[in-house]
Amino acid sequence: MDKQGVIKALKDNDNFTIITHKSPDGDTLGCGFAVCAYLRSIGKHANVVNNDEIPKRYGFLCDWYSPQEFDEQFVIAVDIADVNLMGDNLKKYQQPDAVDLCIDHHISNTGYAKETYVDATAGAAAMIIYEILSEENAIDQPIASMLYTGIATDTGCFKFQNTDSRAHYYAAKLIEAGADFYHINRQMFEVRSRNVVAAERAITSKMKYFCSERVAVNVISLSVLKKYGVDLSQIEAISSFPLTIEGVCAGVTLKEKATGVYKISLRTTEELNASVICNAFGGGGHIRAAGCEMKGELYEVIEKLINKISEYL
Amino acid sequence: MDKQGVIKALKDNDNFTIITHKSPDGDTLGCGFAVCAYLRSIGKHANVVNNDEIPKRYGFLCDWYSPQEFDEQFVIAVDIADVNLMGDNLKKYQQPDAVDLCIDHHISNTGYAKETYVDATAGAAAMIIYEILSEENAIDQPIASMLYTGIATDTGCFKFQNTDSRAHYYAAKLIEAGADFYHINRQMFEVRSRNVVAAERAITSKMKYFCSERVAVNVISLSVLKKYGVDLSQIEAISSFPLTIEGVCAGVTLKEKATGVYKISLRTTEELNASVICNAFGGGGHIRAAGCEMKGELYEVIEKLINKISEYL
Repeated sequence: MDKQGVIKALKDNDNFTIITHKSPDGDTLGCGFAVCAYLRSIGKHANVVNNDEIPKRYGFLCDWYSPQEFDEQFVIAVDIADVNLMGDNLKKYQQPDAVDLCIDHHISNTGYAKETYVDATAGAAAMIIYEILSEENAIDQPIASMLYTGIATDTGCFKFQNTDSRAHYYAAKLIEAGADFYHINRQMFEVRSRNVVAAERAITSKMKYFCSERVAVNVISLSVLKKYGVDLSQIEAISSFPLTIEGVCAGVTLKEKATGVYKISLRTTEELNASVICNAFGGGGHIRAAGCEMKGELYEVIEKLINKISEYL
Repeated sequence: MDKQGVIKALKDNDNFTIITHKSPDGDTLGCGFAVCAYLRSIGKHANVVNNDEIPKRYGFLCDWYSPQEFDEQFVIAVDIADVNLMGDNLKKYQQPDAVDLCIDHHISNTGYAKETYVDATAGAAAMIIYEILSEENAIDQPIASMLYTGIATDTGCFKFQNTDSRAHYYAAKLIEAGADFYHINRQMFEVRSRNVVAAERAITSKMKYFCSERVAVNVISLSVLKKYGVDLSQIEAISSFPLTIEGVCAGVTLKEKATGVYKISLRTTEELNASVICNAFGGGGHIRAAGCEMKGELYEVIEKLINKISEYL
């Protein structure tokens, strides 16, 4: 489906459910609520349905929102590459043909929806939604803030390599439309509670170095989370910390999911392909950021990982 | 002088010296070397003269540069609001009429130069230089990286309130011209040595809170710098740390210059005017970021500052 087809689908249907991906981020939420706000503004009924509770820092995206009552007729998935990213609470949308339209920017999109509109060159799904809504002159101040949030979060505030001139052009347009970039960026990238800062400090002060200090490993244990009263979603930014150390080209974060079960996040500089390394343990992802799950004693897991990484160094 | 006047001055003269401000940042250096590169590209002789050594992280701005021999005929100051910002090594340019042309974006520019081109609405001086050089179709890949550096550093990577749509438009154009934004942003905002990280951790782990945790104070002592073998310019980013703590609206950083002498940096959120508070101690600056110098025992200096801040809370 092309952009005009998407616009027609939005106009020709009613009683929309918009779903976002599990462990929601600024892009999926920004897109979901922007599409919902647009649909309501043209007189349609529309709800956003999320698998998880919305983390507090994204609260401003939906402080205007309350669900409407209607019989669902048209389901839109935003920023969801695969049905398994919907989460257990959205199981009914994982069935074949349950989703009418998927709007996404992942090259890995599995084409599970009846109609799919994917632009894998877009750094954020919000850039695609921007193109659709600006075609309809529908970018008001609240929608501008929602879409800016999606672009800023998915590009790491214009720092990640997926940033391009288009991301900046759209940011410019959204700022002109009133996007509250200053407060959004503070919420997204800066403000944290004292507990979160203390937990991060406790974790990073124990960071271990391997392979002539080219590999750095952080461990987020369940006990440290408990000690500081924080949850994983609050300290996820820590995954980018190892690569901020001069000379480090592979940054590993081990998140303890349960005793002896670790979710691994690997970030790399240009010298290393993160995806290849995580593939070796049944995981996958992108060339600079990938993940996998591993079981065993902590020191064994680290040993296996470091040995695999050093094969490629 | 207007933009056309600046372009004419660059074309009609030769043997240029371009000076940057003391404690140089990405904006003054990016502008200085970009103007120099442009002038050389049109067959002029030009040098950049800096008061201080260039911090290592800005090295890529001038890895192509070596000084030329000529008799100086035309002096350009970039991003220098006042002669006292030139530093002691550039004393000769502080004399009346020593500077032929000043290009700047500070509203406080004192007009010390024979000709002045100020645009105080520009978030970075590099935005002004961009306008001048793009008029001449002179934005090649190296110059694009230099000017991107100026815009990114002076806008805090598009996060500060001085960011506007123009900053994003120019960033887009500079990326299209080949600005190496990914590596630049890593160098500017992310990569630090283990020593610097350890020093920052030592300082911030002792951060003190006042006024119901609305004011936070970091102290950078000479002894901590010595202990970790770092200098102040390497850990300057720490000044923005206090305001990243939820609920803090005034972040104070005290830098020990000598025994009993402190340089104070104050950053505030919208609730507080930093400039007014620093004025009370003979300093000044902007509404959200200001500074002053204070003498006395550490605990006395902190007491005076906190009392003054609490008057306005």
